[in-house]
Amino acid sequence: MAGNRVAGNRAAVIGTGLIGGSIGMGLRARGWHVTGWDQNGARAARAVELGALDEIGPPPAGALVFVATPVGGIVAAVTAALEAAGSGGVVTDVGSVKASVTGAVDDARFVGGHPMAGSEQEGVDGSDGSLFTGATWVLTPTPQTDPSAYARVHAAVAALGADVVAVPPARHDALVALVSHVPHLTAASLMALAAEGAEEHAALLRLAAGGFRDMTRVAAGHPGIWPDICAENADAIVATLDQLVGRLAAVRDVVAGRDRERLLGLLETARAARRNLPARAAGRAEELVEVRVPVPDREGVLAEVTTLAAELSVNIWDIEIAHSAEGDRGVLLMVIDASVADLVRGALLARGFHPSVQPL
Amino acid sequence: MAGNRVAGNRAAVIGTGLIGGSIGMGLRARGWHVTGWDQNGARAARAVELGALDEIGPPPAGALVFVATPVGGIVAAVTAALEAAGSGGVVTDVGSVKASVTGAVDDARFVGGHPMAGSEQEGVDGSDGSLFTGATWVLTPTPQTDPSAYARVHAAVAALGADVVAVPPARHDALVALVSHVPHLTAASLMALAAEGAEEHAALLRLAAGGFRDMTRVAAGHPGIWPDICAENADAIVATLDQLVGRLAAVRDVVAGRDRERLLGLLETARAARRNLPARAAGRAEELVEVRVPVPDREGVLAEVTTLAAELSVNIWDIEIAHSAEGDRGVLLMVIDASVADLVRGALLARGFHPSVQPL
Repeated sequence: MAGNRVAGNRAAVIGTGLIGGSIGMGLRARGWHVTGWDQNGARAARAVELGALDEIGPPPAGALVFVATPVGGIVAAVTAALEAAGSGGVVTDVGSVKASVTGAVDDARFVGGHPMAGSEQEGVDGSDGSLFTGATWVLTPTPQTDPSAYARVHAAVAALGADVVAVPPARHDALVALVSHVPHLTAASLMALAAEGAEEHAALLRLAAGGFRDMTRVAAGHPGIWPDICAENADAIVATLDQLVGRLAAVRDVVAGRDRERLLGLLETARAARRNLPARAAGRAEELVEVRVPVPDREGVLAEVTTLAAELSVNIWDIEIAHSAEGDRGVLLMVIDASVADLVRGALLARGFHPSVQPL
Repeated sequence: MAGNRVAGNRAAVIGTGLIGGSIGMGLRARGWHVTGWDQNGARAARAVELGALDEIGPPPAGALVFVATPVGGIVAAVTAALEAAGSGGVVTDVGSVKASVTGAVDDARFVGGHPMAGSEQEGVDGSDGSLFTGATWVLTPTPQTDPSAYARVHAAVAALGADVVAVPPARHDALVALVSHVPHLTAASLMALAAEGAEEHAALLRLAAGGFRDMTRVAAGHPGIWPDICAENADAIVATLDQLVGRLAAVRDVVAGRDRERLLGLLETARAARRNLPARAAGRAEELVEVRVPVPDREGVLAEVTTLAAELSVNIWDIEIAHSAEGDRGVLLMVIDASVADLVRGALLARGFHPSVQPL
């Protein structure tokens, strides 16, 4: 039993970027011994320096191994890790596409995973042992998965503070195609279209208001991870793009036909769905509300509002400056607990702001 | 001449919502006499109460009239205003679609306009005489426009602090279709698709990360204004939707064909365009940078960061919490002047944050 317990507290991390480093830190803080390895030796050394690893090396026999490499290299790394960890070991990964990996790795000791926090692109220096606290961590067991391997991964992930959601691999991939991959490709397409359409009058992209900026923000990210993701999840992405194209073609016909009723119906449906989108802080007991505060563009006004919230011991779950339909003027949006909405509203009114509060 | 000057300082506002009220306040603050009217009598009375109008009534002869009604009622209101203001009067509007109005109103005294600030949907209580300071205000003169009428509108709009951009009406409409109308319809389509696709597992929309939230945020807005806008700008919207559908179909083929090089090329193009998007605070002399600060989700951290900026007398041009590729953990994004980037970075480091700075 003592031997088992030691093995259970022995982990390995393959790929010591932000996610791998954060897993190492989180587990070490909970008393685990973590061995790590990275293709880039300097990065592994840096992980040791930062306290994310106890030592550099291959996975010890019997360890729980987290493969945190870029998507394209996961199958090879998982296969090598299963070999190194031996019959008493368990291997999981953190890739954002799951069916291709679970399909390629035919081993009961492997459990696919996908923590919805951070990105494999970010550096080890951003590692943080509390990165997964409250985050959703998808696990994708299959009928072939050894239940005790699943339980071991589940326990470690839960120990890191994450909420575990178990989903079949293909279902996971269809969902991320829908809420991440296709939206990203759509943002890039919209941005490229706008840039070409405004070519003669580049300055006129100043007309692009907050909504457009919000929609295209993800397109500013490094494209490096996308060829792998799109290759691994091609089937789900193609199916979702086909659906989106079909919908946009239908919207086009509604607009061309000046069919006001149908257009309004479409937008009402979307509005209801967007307002029902679980809040980022989902899983929490309290209800959340959104406070909208028109703010002038002057020094210190943000500090004034957020300091006020801090003075009232009110946590701000989310904050942004939005530009209602268009324009450069700010409306500060804050997401707070519904239970303190009146308190915050009163305090803001007392300071001369004109807040409005609506349920999320 | 004296008579002319009096007429030149006499304005009227038809429709006293946020935009109309703000125009009234801004002009009154600059010594103009403003008469206003609204279909909703209580709203007009409220505008007087708030100091947005001197009096309620039809446009006086010779006045400069701002028509700030919802898009569907603009042509009728402009026609009536031209009649009331007489031969010495000039009429402009603030609608978000221009070719249909300029086409329908065949009068040299009319100049189409579109201030990119706020929305005609918001209430008069949000009115603010400085709403247009630094905002872009599009004017759409045609070859038929009387140059002196254009000059008079231009001078008033510039007096309100706006940057005037003159664009032909059809060009304006094509641009707003591209950067506002089609993005809005796309956001709604994506949201509806995701809601249906996740129907059996609604809770799994928790997997929807910051990027998806950003992209669909506009879909949460009131759909009321959109049937009018889509009807008025149907041709440009249909043409742009056709282009977007074509692009998405091409992306689909690239993904289906696992064509990594072309995919990377598409995303690189979009990335460059997004990073070249003029900043919201465009038109300002200084360069802007984006500061990214990973922040834990705890009380007061926003106040700490923004108070620090205020203490350093640094203005925050834009702020939001973003979630890099996915996840629930916050990265605070602030847009500040490049000249103070080092100051802010140093102060944040001193407080234990790990900021990174990149040009916008």
